[in-house]
Amino acid sequence: MAAPPPADERPLVMLAQALFPEFAAALAGRYRFALLADADAAAADEARALLVGGLPRVTAQHLGVLPALKLVACTSVGVDHVDLDACRSRGLSVTNAGAAFAADSADYAVGLLVAVLRRVSGKRVGIVGLGNIGSRVARRLAAFGCAVSYHSRSPKPSAPYPFVPALRDLAAGSDVLVLSCALTDETKHMVNRDVMEALGKGGVLVNVGRGGLVDEPELLRCLRQGVIGGAGLDVYENERAVLTPESIGGVLEVVIANLDAFFSGRPLVSPMEL
Amino acid sequence: MAAPPPADERPLVMLAQALFPEFAAALAGRYRFALLADADAAAADEARALLVGGLPRVTAQHLGVLPALKLVACTSVGVDHVDLDACRSRGLSVTNAGAAFAADSADYAVGLLVAVLRRVSGKRVGIVGLGNIGSRVARRLAAFGCAVSYHSRSPKPSAPYPFVPALRDLAAGSDVLVLSCALTDETKHMVNRDVMEALGKGGVLVNVGRGGLVDEPELLRCLRQGVIGGAGLDVYENERAVLTPESIGGVLEVVIANLDAFFSGRPLVSPMEL
Repeated sequence: MAAPPPADERPLVMLAQALFPEFAAALAGRYRFALLADADAAAADEARALLVGGLPRVTAQHLGVLPALKLVACTSVGVDHVDLDACRSRGLSVTNAGAAFAADSADYAVGLLVAVLRRVSGKRVGIVGLGNIGSRVARRLAAFGCAVSYHSRSPKPSAPYPFVPALRDLAAGSDVLVLSCALTDETKHMVNRDVMEALGKGGVLVNVGRGGLVDEPELLRCLRQGVIGGAGLDVYENERAVLTPESIGGVLEVVIANLDAFFSGRPLVSPMEL
Repeated sequence: MAAPPPADERPLVMLAQALFPEFAAALAGRYRFALLADADAAAADEARALLVGGLPRVTAQHLGVLPALKLVACTSVGVDHVDLDACRSRGLSVTNAGAAFAADSADYAVGLLVAVLRRVSGKRVGIVGLGNIGSRVARRLAAFGCAVSYHSRSPKPSAPYPFVPALRDLAAGSDVLVLSCALTDETKHMVNRDVMEALGKGGVLVNVGRGGLVDEPELLRCLRQGVIGGAGLDVYENERAVLTPESIGGVLEVVIANLDAFFSGRPLVSPMEL
């Protein structure tokens, strides 16, 4: 572009990568933008917010060129592509997509289950991660007459389902294991051969979290060897889940709400605990 | 077979067509069988029960050769392949598969919806027929956050969903129309062009009842012309729904329970109102 954007009252938001056209159109009236890879020194010095659309890696080095940065606003639910240690030590706030994808992911988890199992009713379902997605999967499957139990870092006092402290035990007591937790150093490849052997021959694995939760080469071996019965994957190790018009609208709402809150000094809508 | 079966205490059950091997194995210890097409006069005179496995047409003429007949036990949910007028005028009892297929059909209806719509949550769903299947579909979709309403011959006082007296109105107020009612003279081709126009461009039709509920040539025209948005069909005009091991077990249970009740003079488990 030859002409720079007109100087006006709109705050500058740095972009980790180019926005989807829908996002750019919806946000253009509220903010000015600069692309991190092309930004001049003045823009880099000015930017107080970084918008991370999609899943580009955001490293300490990227953050280091933005001295005024205070907010990293992500359009995804998982934020494992962002160097959270660096954010923590810089005192940055990080927001994610909140529950924007939760209904999509939960609907699709049930669709995958019907596709893989044909009959879902009455099955014992173990849910790993009872957050925005997992709790919605649980509610849906409870209405199918499934016996739901769950595993997570700690029990959720308000959840009406039994908590199972060990993932292997959850797998052993389930016909279906649904993964709907965040990808962290602790959860990476948490579904290994041991867990799949516990799930067993008739067991089905459904992953609507992040692909990295599963040791994929081991999963393929287990499927080939009949160690587990089947798998329904909404995500692969390097790919994100599917979108619907409703969830794109939902993400837009959450991202705008977080940016607006940040620039007007109000509490963030979907801050991550770092 | 050269040798006739040994005469014993087991009651004779006439078969409208050969049984699935699973059925034959499960029932062999309890009953003697004769195939209607091959039966000799003695068997035809003796048979008090006719077992209708699958969907062979059972006409007044078939019934006419069985003077002692009192029970027509069907392995299907719909009994439109049996001449019910003839059963009524002969005073025969007719039983169906009861709720044996209901969980399968309801699970599959939801699976079809996810496959066609991707996002089910929040949709307005109109259910046609709130019986064993329809009520289970309603419960599942309510847990998806769908707004459920229904149409049937008469309101169900215990149903927590709004009743809509006219099918066309239900279609006009729904994003999704789920057919889960019996096929009768009144319901045949109830989904015609008028109903599909009311459902509209973004609307989706899901049929887990009988194929004959829908005017299929008109459905194909409406899909081609974009009158409705999509369709998920578990059944076609001349075909039945899918089976799972669980539902086959369920049907066996219901059929045996009906035959046992009949031959021991107890009330039938799943009698049809004629």
